[in-house]
Order: sequence, then C-alpha cells, then structure tokens
Amino acid sequence: MSKDQAKQEFTNLMKEMKQYEEAIALMAWDLRTKAPKKGIEQRSEVIGMFAQKVHQLSTSDEMKRLLEELREETDDPILKRSVELAKKDFEKNEKIPDQEYKEFVMLRSKAESVWEEAKNTNNFSLFEPYLEKIVEFNRRFANYWGYEDHIYNALLDQYEPGVTVRILDEVFPPVREKLTELVQKIQQSDVAIDSSKILLPFPKQQQEKFSLEILKAMGYDFSSGRLDETVHPFAISLNPFDVRVTTKYDEKDFRTAVFGTIHEGGHALYEQNIDQSLINTPMATGTSMGIHESQSLFWENFVARTNAFWEKNYDLFKSIAPSDFQEIELPEFYKMINEVKPSFIRIEADELTYCLHIMIRYEIEKALISGEVQVKDVPELWNSKMEEYLGIRPATDSEGVLQDIHWAGGDFGYFPSYALGYMYAAQFRDKMKEEHHVEELIRQGKLSVIKKWLTENIHQYGKMKEPLEILKDVTGESLNPDHLMNYLEDKYSKIYKF
Amino acid sequence: MSKDQAKQEFTNLMKEMKQYEEAIALMAWDLRTKAPKKGIEQRSEVIGMFAQKVHQLSTSDEMKRLLEELREETDDPILKRSVELAKKDFEKNEKIPDQEYKEFVMLRSKAESVWEEAKNTNNFSLFEPYLEKIVEFNRRFANYWGYEDHIYNALLDQYEPGVTVRILDEVFPPVREKLTELVQKIQQSDVAIDSSKILLPFPKQQQEKFSLEILKAMGYDFSSGRLDETVHPFAISLNPFDVRVTTKYDEKDFRTAVFGTIHEGGHALYEQNIDQSLINTPMATGTSMGIHESQSLFWENFVARTNAFWEKNYDLFKSIAPSDFQEIELPEFYKMINEVKPSFIRIEADELTYCLHIMIRYEIEKALISGEVQVKDVPELWNSKMEEYLGIRPATDSEGVLQDIHWAGGDFGYFPSYALGYMYAAQFRDKMKEEHHVEELIRQGKLSVIKKWLTENIHQYGKMKEPLEILKDVTGESLNPDHLMNYLEDKYSKIYKF
Repeated sequence: MSKDQAKQEFTNLMKEMKQYEEAIALMAWDLRTKAPKKGIEQRSEVIGMFAQKVHQLSTSDEMKRLLEELREETDDPILKRSVELAKKDFEKNEKIPDQEYKEFVMLRSKAESVWEEAKNTNNFSLFEPYLEKIVEFNRRFANYWGYEDHIYNALLDQYEPGVTVRILDEVFPPVREKLTELVQKIQQSDVAIDSSKILLPFPKQQQEKFSLEILKAMGYDFSSGRLDETVHPFAISLNPFDVRVTTKYDEKDFRTAVFGTIHEGGHALYEQNIDQSLINTPMATGTSMGIHESQSLFWENFVARTNAFWEKNYDLFKSIAPSDFQEIELPEFYKMINEVKPSFIRIEADELTYCLHIMIRYEIEKALISGEVQVKDVPELWNSKMEEYLGIRPATDSEGVLQDIHWAGGDFGYFPSYALGYMYAAQFRDKMKEEHHVEELIRQGKLSVIKKWLTENIHQYGKMKEPLEILKDVTGESLNPDHLMNYLEDKYSKIYKF
Repeated sequence: MSKDQAKQEFTNLMKEMKQYEEAIALMAWDLRTKAPKKGIEQRSEVIGMFAQKVHQLSTSDEMKRLLEELREETDDPILKRSVELAKKDFEKNEKIPDQEYKEFVMLRSKAESVWEEAKNTNNFSLFEPYLEKIVEFNRRFANYWGYEDHIYNALLDQYEPGVTVRILDEVFPPVREKLTELVQKIQQSDVAIDSSKILLPFPKQQQEKFSLEILKAMGYDFSSGRLDETVHPFAISLNPFDVRVTTKYDEKDFRTAVFGTIHEGGHALYEQNIDQSLINTPMATGTSMGIHESQSLFWENFVARTNAFWEKNYDLFKSIAPSDFQEIELPEFYKMINEVKPSFIRIEADELTYCLHIMIRYEIEKALISGEVQVKDVPELWNSKMEEYLGIRPATDSEGVLQDIHWAGGDFGYFPSYALGYMYAAQFRDKMKEEHHVEELIRQGKLSVIKKWLTENIHQYGKMKEPLEILKDVTGESLNPDHLMNYLEDKYSKIYKF
C-alpha cells in the first residue's frame, strides 16, 4: 500500500469515528433535553451500540495497520497529530474488552436517569448499586491501562494529560489554606451582603430572553448552535458548526440561568471556534477538560461577575427583569452577585468557595478508586468534609453527594479539572491584561476583542496542543495558582474591605 | 452452524439495523425541528454514512448466509416474517451499488434544505437541478429492481406493495369523476359558506395548548413522545416508545395546526401501539404508507371534522381561543371547518378536493419516471392540471409545485398512498360502525374505544401483515372506493343541502 493510500484510509477512518460521535452526541443531548421517558432504555442501548462501534474502530486491525504505516509521518502537522492521538487511544482502548466497554457505556446511560430519579427523590440507595458498578469499572479500566505512582493517575490522564496526583497534592493544600483564610476574613468583615434580596420571582421566559441576549453579546453563533432547557446544564459539540448550550431556569433565583448560560456559552465558544481544518479529525474538540473549564470560568467570572459587565448590561437586564428588580441599584446588585457564602451546591457556589467543593470531590474520588473508601460510606464522608472545609453540613443527599451528574456519567478523574480550569483562566487573564485594558473592553461591551484573543490563543488549536503546552505558549508559565489567589484576594478585599 | 445460532445472529443483525435507523430518525427529526443552519451539511453526511451502513448490512454476505440458513423457518411467526421482509429488502438492495445509494441519501438530505429555501423564495430553478438528479436516481433504481407492465410499479411497491399502475388507473378516474360532480353540486348549492370568518388571529402558544389537549384526548402517550414545531409537519417513530409529532402554527389560520396535529397524531398512535414483541424487528413500523395514512385521515376527518367531535370539544376550544372566537356558534363553526373550496395547498385542502391534489401528483410523477415529461416542464404542467381539475391556477411555484417536501426527500411512488389511505379509512369506518355507535362515542369523548378498535384491528400488527391483507382481514373486502364516495356524498349533501 502506498503512503498516500494509507493517509487517505486513515483520514476516512478518523472521519467515520467522528460521525459516530456526532450521532452519539445528538442522542445524548436529546436524552438530556427532549427525549420521552419511556424511550430512555431503548436509546441507552443504541448509544451503547454506537460507542462500541467507535471503540471497535479505535482498536481495529485496520487502525493498527494504518498507525504502523504512518508512524513516521512528519510532513503534515494535522495528520501527524491525528496519528499521535489515535495511537494513544489505540493503546488505551485495546486493553479494554469490547463487551466490557459496551456494558460500561450502557451502564452510564442508564445510571444517569437513575441518578436523576435518586436526586429528585433524595434516595441515595437507589443510585448506590449503579455507583458501585461505575467505580468498579473505573478501577478495572485504570488497571488495564496501567499507571505510575497512583491508580488515580490513569483516570486523570483521560481529562488532563500531564497532571498527576503528585501535582494536585502539592497545589491543592496551600490553595485550600489560602481560601480558608480569605473566607475567614470575609466572615469577620464588617461588610454584610445579603443576596436574598435579589432572589425575586423571575419568570422562565424572561430569563431565557436575557440569556439569549447575553449569548449573542458573547459572540455565540446561533446559526451554529441553540439554547435549550435541561436539569443539569451542559454544552455539547456535535461538530464546530453545531455546538449546543443548555441551561436550567430557577424562577426563584435568576443567577442559576444567567451565570450558568454564560458558563456553558464559554465552553461553546471554544468548540465553535476551533479551526475548520480540524473538522473530522480527533483534534476537533477542546484539548482538555481543564482548558475547557478555563474558558467557561473566564466568561462566567472574569467577564460576567465584574462591575464593568453590569455597567454595560444592567439597563438591558432591568428592561427584561420583573418590576421588583427596578429598585435595586447597581453597586448593591454587584455585591449580591459576588456574595461569598459557604453553600451546598457546587454549580451555585461563589467563585471563592468553589475550589473547596472540588477538593472534596477529588479526595473522595481518589479514595474510592484506591479502595480506601466504600460507596456506601460516601454520603457520610461527603457531609463530614463539607463541614470541615465549608463549615456547613447538607441535610439531604440531594444537596450533598447526589448533586452532580458526573459520577453517574462514569466520569472519575474529571473533577480536578474544574479547579485547574480556574487556575489556568486566571493565568490567561493576567496575560490578556498585558495586551488589553480588559476591564474597559468589558465596560464598553467589546466582548468580541476578548473572544478574538481567546480564539487566537486557545480555541483555534482544538486538540493540536496539549493543555500544559497551550498554557506555556500563551503565558510562558507552567501551572501557577498564584494568579488565581491574587485575583481573589484583590477582588474580595475590595468588596469586603479587608 | 446450528439453527439456533443462526436465529440469534439474525435477530442481532435485525436489531443492529434498527439501531442505526433509530439514530437516523433522530437526526432527521433534529434537522427538521431544531438543528442550527450551519450544521446541516455535516449532518447530511452523517445521515448518509449511517444509511449506507444499513444498506451494507441489508446486503451483506452475513445477511445472505443467514437468509439462506433460515429460509425454511416456519415455527416462529415473528422470525418467519422478519426473514421474509429482510429477504425482500436484500433482493432489492443488492441491486443498488453502495456508493450510489449513499450519494442518493446525501442528495436527499441536501435537497430538502435547498427545497426549503426554494419554497421560501419562490425559486423553482434553485431546486430544479436537485429534482432532476432525484428523478434520475429513481429511474435508475426502478430499472435495477425491475418491474412488470410499468416502470412506476417498481416505485409504488416501496410504499404500497400489491398496488399497481393498473389498479390506480382503474380506480382513480371514476373517483375523479364523482368528486368533480360533487364539487359542481356544491358550487351550485344555495348554501354559501365563508370560512374566512374563522381566520382570526390565534397566538401560537394557545394553538399549542389546544393541540396538546387534543393529542391527550386521542390517547397519544406523552411519556413515549413529544410535540414540536416544524415547517412541514410529520410524525416520526424512533421506536414504539419514542414516537414524535411535529406541527406548524399559522397564527392567521388555526386549522393548520389543529387538524395537522390530529393528522400526525393519528400516524403516531399507529406507531406507539405496535405490539412490543415486534420491537427491534423490521415489523416495528406501519405496514404501508397507505395504511398509515388511513390512520391519520381517520382521526383528522372521521373524528375531528365531525359535529360530534366539536359538540364535545367546543367549550374547551373556546376556553383557549382568543375572545374573537367566542361569538361563533357551533353550527356555523362546523360548516366553516368543512367548507369545500378548491385551493392550492394540498395539506390545507378540504377532504373532498384532497384526492384531486393527489391525482395531479400521481400523473406528474408517473410521467417523470416514464420519461414522458421533463423536470423543467413540471411547474407549467402542475399549474395546467390544477386548472383542469380544480379550476384554479397557482400564481407562484411556492403555492404550486414547490409546496410538498416529498420529491425533495426522494419519495416517488408515495403520493398515491394518500388517496388509498382515504379509501382504506372509509372502509375501516364502515366496519367500525357495524360494531360501535361511532358518532356517539365521539360525542361522549370516548375516543379510547376508537383507539382500542384501531389498535386491535390494525396498529398492533405493525408490518406483520401486508396492507391489502389487513384490509381484507378487517373489512372482508379488497380496495373499494365506494365507501369513501358514499361517505362524502352523505356528509356534503347534508352540509350543502343537495
């Protein structure tokens, strides 16, 4: 076979895998937004079958042969990187038996709907057997894959290649200390913020209207996407021309939808702005969960929780919000959307306590995977850690261990990326500030400049670069939590005057 | 290989094909209801790839071998029928080269979106090259398949096995004569109905509310389905537990949505009530387009356009409709939803002139496929026939040849099923009347009895029986247009007093 023929066959194979993934993504989006209840089981089977197909292709004899043929390919950077990523996948996937993988995918799909019911009815025991199986699958897979130092590293590598337990156990404790110190200063501050004043009734339809306006202002392309409602918000890319945002409307707390939509919108901007030359290759997606999260958090916090953002958008907000909101002055509003207050639900947490939520999950995951902790003990462990780090104890599992979909979705090793994303985002922000007066851009509504900077520095590359490589290329640094800590200290010392 | 092993392998193969079809159905639904514009092209490719997979499976060596192994299977009626249908498919599909089939599927998908633009901008020339290619593909396929008597029979067989050009050319002309006679009597009648009085503004949201209520009353199961908005309404089954209805809201004419929703709801009831033992087999769908249409038309006309139906539901309607509707009395309303008036748009046609619309399409299709007519001449031909049969001439192609999606979707041989469905439905109605006081059931809102009768006699069998076999089993007759003619004469002679 000629090299050209091998290249063509490999390109076709990559495309075929992407096409299966597009169908899987649409079915998953549908299950979480639109699908009728009785169809879930049948659908889960279909998703399982398709995921198995992708798995089979990624470990096929044809793949093996093509990777061998193309192992010294160096001319075409896109082909070279495709081969590199396919090879990594091949080596990981061939270690997992087809049947086991299919079972895992079906289990995840089923577990997600059971989790939803367990959460709605506050019934951990309903979800417990599913979680046990999911942990067991993850342990088994980690062992198939192999690891250095710690079994959890095998799982981390799926989401944040290059980051290890050693790094996390070095970075997280001092960050936790600093955050605890800041929380204490805030609690001792004379400034009292009571955000309950903005928890006014806000009809779903008006929240949707504002969410749509803000997505538009961010530069989200609606001809390549759409906004829908769901239980647990997410953004999903079918391909760069079809990247969908979902959100949740809480009629008693507009912040859920507004900041949630902006957060998912940040993810979506990343996927929509990947270079078109990468379509139908493995690089047509964000490079890691952490870099992805850096984009969503950038928009949610560094753009949308600033005074400058609301100076620009407060009139628009008031024109859409119910009349009760009209009396709230902007300085008061700004403080209320930045209240620091230990709370139960991660996705509703303020940006200061957020990383503490992540650390709890990281510690529990690591212990579950290493076998130090059993699933049945997790609710109690969760609650104890909440008390230790945040000083509050959930009264129910629905506002405790059952709040996140991730474990139901089979995702272990994912949570740390949220904290990493925060740190990356703060590093990007400081770099952007060297080149632009970011606050002024936000105040003037010139969000397109920010979007352009992020696209040029991050989005366009998709998975062409590794996460720590992007970080280094953009900021000249490796992982450095100081940027985040300085940002938080600066912002909150002003709000809480300490 | 043992017989049991062959059975298992065959069952798995059928299931795999159904799973691809479920994904294709979801992608098609999404394209027509939700998908962002820029994603269409990429999506069309994915649908094309999947359709090719199904095609490959249906003509695979494995299929050939299994059909051979199981050719004398007689014990299990489900397996027997699966083999029979798979064999028919195999023999048809193996004659079409994979690549050609894939091109056709991608063409269809693309053509549908071009058609939409052509219709919106009244620009037939935009659609013309696509339609030419689609006709060409249909001619080529018909020749691959082979036929007796007339090339068009090969296409008819896809939708209405057992029905031929000879039958249609026998039945359609006398029906056309009778319909023309009735239209004339109506035009000479002293009774003048002006339905423009009910063309009052009716906001989309309220129309949706009423549509949902009526679907519920029909017994449509929302835990196995949902209602969405689209340009050209359809119902689609992903599997019997996920059967979706779409509708179109015209804020100036509520009848479009109300009767359209009921029509598609009739299709959906058929698919939702197929026996569960048929899931994941080729029989888990309606047996033919004509029998399908008999179900939608039964509900739309024989249920929802009756006086009895509105005696039951008029209060509900008024409670949802805008205040301007309050003044319209029921007898007047009943007449206005049954006005006979030659009009341009098939899906908005009254039940008397409807079949004339079908005959125009049938004649043009037949001539295109036999090569007697060229695509470029179709708009003019369409308009002439409209003038000849209905006495009116479309001013634009949007309200002429561009109105239907079918040809864009590649469907030639499909249109006659609409008229056949009418005739079947009238035959079913007369049979049902022997067993039940149908009018009284409708008046009392006991639609569940009607649904049950249809499920027991028709729905449950899915594709276990051939269309004319069902007709015979239920009514004891073969195709007989007299039932429809008598029904129409009876109904309209009362309304128009002739």
